[in-house]
Amino acid sequence: MVLRAFLIGCVALQMTAAGADDNSFFAARRKALMEKIEGSIAVLKGATETSSYTAFRQDNNFYYLTGVETPGAILLLDGIRKRSILFLPPRSEEIENWEGPRLYPGREARNATGIDQVLEISEFERELEKRKENLDRLYLPLSPIETAAVSRDRALKHEELTSRDVWEGRISREAALGQSLRARLGSVPIVDLSPVLDEMRRVKDAQEIARLREAARIGALGIKEAMRSAAPGMYEYQLAALAHFVFLWEGASGFAFHPIVGSGPNSCILHYSANGRRMSEGDLVVMDFGPDYRYYVSDITRTFPISGKFRREQAEVYQAVLDAQKAAIAKIRPGATFADLADAVDKALDRHGYARFLNHGVSHYLGMSTHDVGSVEPFVPGVVITIEPGVYMPDRNLGVRIEDTVLVTTDGCEILSKDVPKDIAEIEALMAQKGIAATIMN
Amino acid sequence: MVLRAFLIGCVALQMTAAGADDNSFFAARRKALMEKIEGSIAVLKGATETSSYTAFRQDNNFYYLTGVETPGAILLLDGIRKRSILFLPPRSEEIENWEGPRLYPGREARNATGIDQVLEISEFERELEKRKENLDRLYLPLSPIETAAVSRDRALKHEELTSRDVWEGRISREAALGQSLRARLGSVPIVDLSPVLDEMRRVKDAQEIARLREAARIGALGIKEAMRSAAPGMYEYQLAALAHFVFLWEGASGFAFHPIVGSGPNSCILHYSANGRRMSEGDLVVMDFGPDYRYYVSDITRTFPISGKFRREQAEVYQAVLDAQKAAIAKIRPGATFADLADAVDKALDRHGYARFLNHGVSHYLGMSTHDVGSVEPFVPGVVITIEPGVYMPDRNLGVRIEDTVLVTTDGCEILSKDVPKDIAEIEALMAQKGIAATIMN
Repeated sequence: MVLRAFLIGCVALQMTAAGADDNSFFAARRKALMEKIEGSIAVLKGATETSSYTAFRQDNNFYYLTGVETPGAILLLDGIRKRSILFLPPRSEEIENWEGPRLYPGREARNATGIDQVLEISEFERELEKRKENLDRLYLPLSPIETAAVSRDRALKHEELTSRDVWEGRISREAALGQSLRARLGSVPIVDLSPVLDEMRRVKDAQEIARLREAARIGALGIKEAMRSAAPGMYEYQLAALAHFVFLWEGASGFAFHPIVGSGPNSCILHYSANGRRMSEGDLVVMDFGPDYRYYVSDITRTFPISGKFRREQAEVYQAVLDAQKAAIAKIRPGATFADLADAVDKALDRHGYARFLNHGVSHYLGMSTHDVGSVEPFVPGVVITIEPGVYMPDRNLGVRIEDTVLVTTDGCEILSKDVPKDIAEIEALMAQKGIAATIMN
Repeated sequence: MVLRAFLIGCVALQMTAAGADDNSFFAARRKALMEKIEGSIAVLKGATETSSYTAFRQDNNFYYLTGVETPGAILLLDGIRKRSILFLPPRSEEIENWEGPRLYPGREARNATGIDQVLEISEFERELEKRKENLDRLYLPLSPIETAAVSRDRALKHEELTSRDVWEGRISREAALGQSLRARLGSVPIVDLSPVLDEMRRVKDAQEIARLREAARIGALGIKEAMRSAAPGMYEYQLAALAHFVFLWEGASGFAFHPIVGSGPNSCILHYSANGRRMSEGDLVVMDFGPDYRYYVSDITRTFPISGKFRREQAEVYQAVLDAQKAAIAKIRPGATFADLADAVDKALDRHGYARFLNHGVSHYLGMSTHDVGSVEPFVPGVVITIEPGVYMPDRNLGVRIEDTVLVTTDGCEILSKDVPKDIAEIEALMAQKGIAATIMN
């Protein structure tokens, strides 16, 4: 990879603004948000250039409201005048040369994004200043930024860890931004925008559902390829590599979360991700993985025998988990809650005496993040959840988990990840097919 | 992916300590470093748990000296007593349950790592306190932490960008650690350890060379697969997906840097990485990519016609760049400098009148990072560099770059990435073979 001749440093890749028909969705979301913050203004700061040589990925909230993937942008939503202003870094020939064309302040960007005004980032302070008179509050998202593979649970845990660590001890990016704004706002209070955005993002619109459907389609293809290719002698990471390849081949930008491919004893480690074990005859494999497709993810788990045929005791436990999963899916509809699903799983597993072998939550919202935002219940049409009961018996090296991504519809639900088989006979039939691995290992 | 039942948050994966024969290399590096800081002590803070659901990757310097891949560790090198102490977070049943076994303070970790003492992280302050009397200085690396896909040039650029940004405005992690230590050290000055480590890391030992060799082997396999599979109608990102798949399949933890796959007009954008264009007959493709294998990378660029046959004007430019690259490689030996290589490239390109179409540096050190540390010249046996001349003619949509990873030996050099063909006839022969893409697109 090229090093600049005389400079150190170079900047992140450019990604383009969304196409015209996408823009109406972003505009509708800004409009809805401005209604919710009526009489106030909101500020969002997009993701900064990456500090590593990885692709730039915008913050979920910023993307949700703009579709803009330019590093270092700021969005100001003026709920008083009902206007949006996007602030972008100035044009740079150096960046164009190294990274390709970008979006710059001006009319072109306004047309491309459909945002009322696109100004240079240096104008942000003045625009803020103009509005601070008589302002009753300023909304700012105080939850951690969500870029690639970030879910809030983990990001908060990280924030807590680092803030407790006297040798780390920096305030968070969001807290720092809050401080900078507070210094300029005088007595105007800052209010957390995250709960407002969370509730909007919880219920998906048509564009989001289309992307989630595509993410689930791609996710299913990837898991299926791993199942087809699976054979004793392979390493866990090779199953991950196969699924990851299919995700990228189909246009995903990356993964939603690091692959979990746990075989034999590792099938009982819930977020196992070393993926370093060589698999052998008789191993059961728990594979939990999903792509990130245009800012929307899927999350699918399948458990299968590496050799392609379930052993009797494996089949027995597997069937119990599958029954529990289906019992829970039967409950998914508007008005249902996470507790209803947990209850259905518990009852079904209990019939086999397995309920005590489950030690994790069995459902979560999913969307732009894997463990998505939104804490409100019951379900309404347009929310997307996963359902993932499991049974883990470390003494027998036997872990089973089955997970689907499910859309709540007006009268029930739709299993977005239904393309991956989960009935025992169907799994065995799929695994009898020849996969990519068979081709390349010749 | 599983959500905890009652808690938010979960922690990074566990990776194991290095094997016994690796340990002697880590021990030798600690010993060498302690000699360089004779009479003083050095402190290194390993990488923290990730804030996203990605795999933990240790900081390069921390790994270089310990082989330890446990999040949240600290290393104290006592150059007075010539002893090393590793500080680790305490045992956590919750982490074991979710992430698998980890390394914990105590004898087991001492045996696994070969480090003199392994204490709990909470003891670090006391151990520091013990040593601060009569201490003439404390060494601390002040350059940015290097985790996955980080090279210092980019990390510094990011630091500069964020420190200039009034809306970001946090001090760096390293600066924060420096402040915390300073507060406890009284009048003991803190001295930057980075230059000492940089110079050690510049010259690779036998373990490093073995891993760089393997990284180059894997990198070559990946690029070759992309070349074999390439065909009009494919998207740039699909070539990246193929190479990335081979990297992961062969045991790499990920990529050294985001893939650059620029076809047609994009072949002239140096760090192009959107990779979104559909390629068609007649396009030339610049592909620049490499894996991260056990903390060592490779960096290979090949330019090839998507259809498998160079057109006449493409072949002409290509041959000029290839001649320039070979002329530069002929100069690589102990005693040579980057300027010697740039000069050889410039002279060779100038014979074709192409020198003015090259606007970037043609060589950099490589090792644990792609743009690796080390600013000292001339070359000595054991340094690894890349050599990458290019010619870019945007008016003709014609960019060519050819890059190899090269080890300097006692009497010349060894091209570690030699497995990927670069002569025109060899490229065309490779591309006539059937690749994975042909199999899966049926």
